[in-house]
Amino acid sequence: MEPRGGWLDETEQRAWQGLIGFAMLALPELERAHRRHGLVHIEYGLLAALSDRSYRLSELAAMLTMSQSRLSHRMNKLRDRGLVLLSPSPEDGRVTVAEISPAGRALVESIAPGHVEDVRRLVFDNLTPAQTEALADALTAVIGGLGSCGPIDRPAPDCPPPGCP
Amino acid sequence: MEPRGGWLDETEQRAWQGLIGFAMLALPELERAHRRHGLVHIEYGLLAALSDRSYRLSELAAMLTMSQSRLSHRMNKLRDRGLVLLSPSPEDGRVTVAEISPAGRALVESIAPGHVEDVRRLVFDNLTPAQTEALADALTAVIGGLGSCGPIDRPAPDCPPPGCP
Repeated sequence: MEPRGGWLDETEQRAWQGLIGFAMLALPELERAHRRHGLVHIEYGLLAALSDRSYRLSELAAMLTMSQSRLSHRMNKLRDRGLVLLSPSPEDGRVTVAEISPAGRALVESIAPGHVEDVRRLVFDNLTPAQTEALADALTAVIGGLGSCGPIDRPAPDCPPPGCP
Repeated sequence: MEPRGGWLDETEQRAWQGLIGFAMLALPELERAHRRHGLVHIEYGLLAALSDRSYRLSELAAMLTMSQSRLSHRMNKLRDRGLVLLSPSPEDGRVTVAEISPAGRALVESIAPGHVEDVRRLVFDNLTPAQTEALADALTAVIGGLGSCGPIDRPAPDCPPPGCP
């Protein structure tokens, strides 16, 4: 049986293999680096996002396409470690707002430089500026098509939460 | 503290967010599709690779940057389900060779069209041919830099196993 749109051509196969290869080779290495600080990747992403501003849990869940219950579980663990503060919104007590604690900020600030060096080594050191730009443009189009309004690791400040995703 | 090479610029951030976003949004969806067939993604990748030719376990482990023991565990499960055959190499009895069984081939052939349709919908339907080519070129450079000689999902036929990785 032929797939709708046909089989992948040689270029599509290379692109697909690159995406899978990145996920299977580079991400586990970053995950190991985060574990040395007692975090899993998603926790680093949450703390990095919260280091810019506070978020309602519902906004974070939408940005990460996580269920609210899964996110709450993760955030409660970060709160129990003193890395985030969770409190009812002053405007609506049913809404929980997450903000980073001083200890959380200190942790992100201690991890971030090494994380960026890992990302450079794993990705950008292998690319010319033109390739980096082409990669960014292509992946922005892919992520746009996935129906997410924002990135995961470090949400864009202009991400419009109500329409997301 | 400033990372060596500096913080990511705006383009690098977009590219990085795209890579993480792809891994966190698209891969779980593909994983759910494979689960409906009783497979995890890596098992589909193994069966897809074996549908082209047989491999020594050491070659597969190198291609996937998996430990031999982890790969053996996974392959034994596929063998127990009748999807692959494992046998000593005729040239060297200490070497185990994996090949796909007729049932394994039938399973891959039944899954592959839907998998390709998912991949098109999640990735290539959102890209122009020029963007697909730029994505392939950039990711090929990234994967090359990661020290892998071949893709994971469907190893290249010309992947030279001895130098890998």
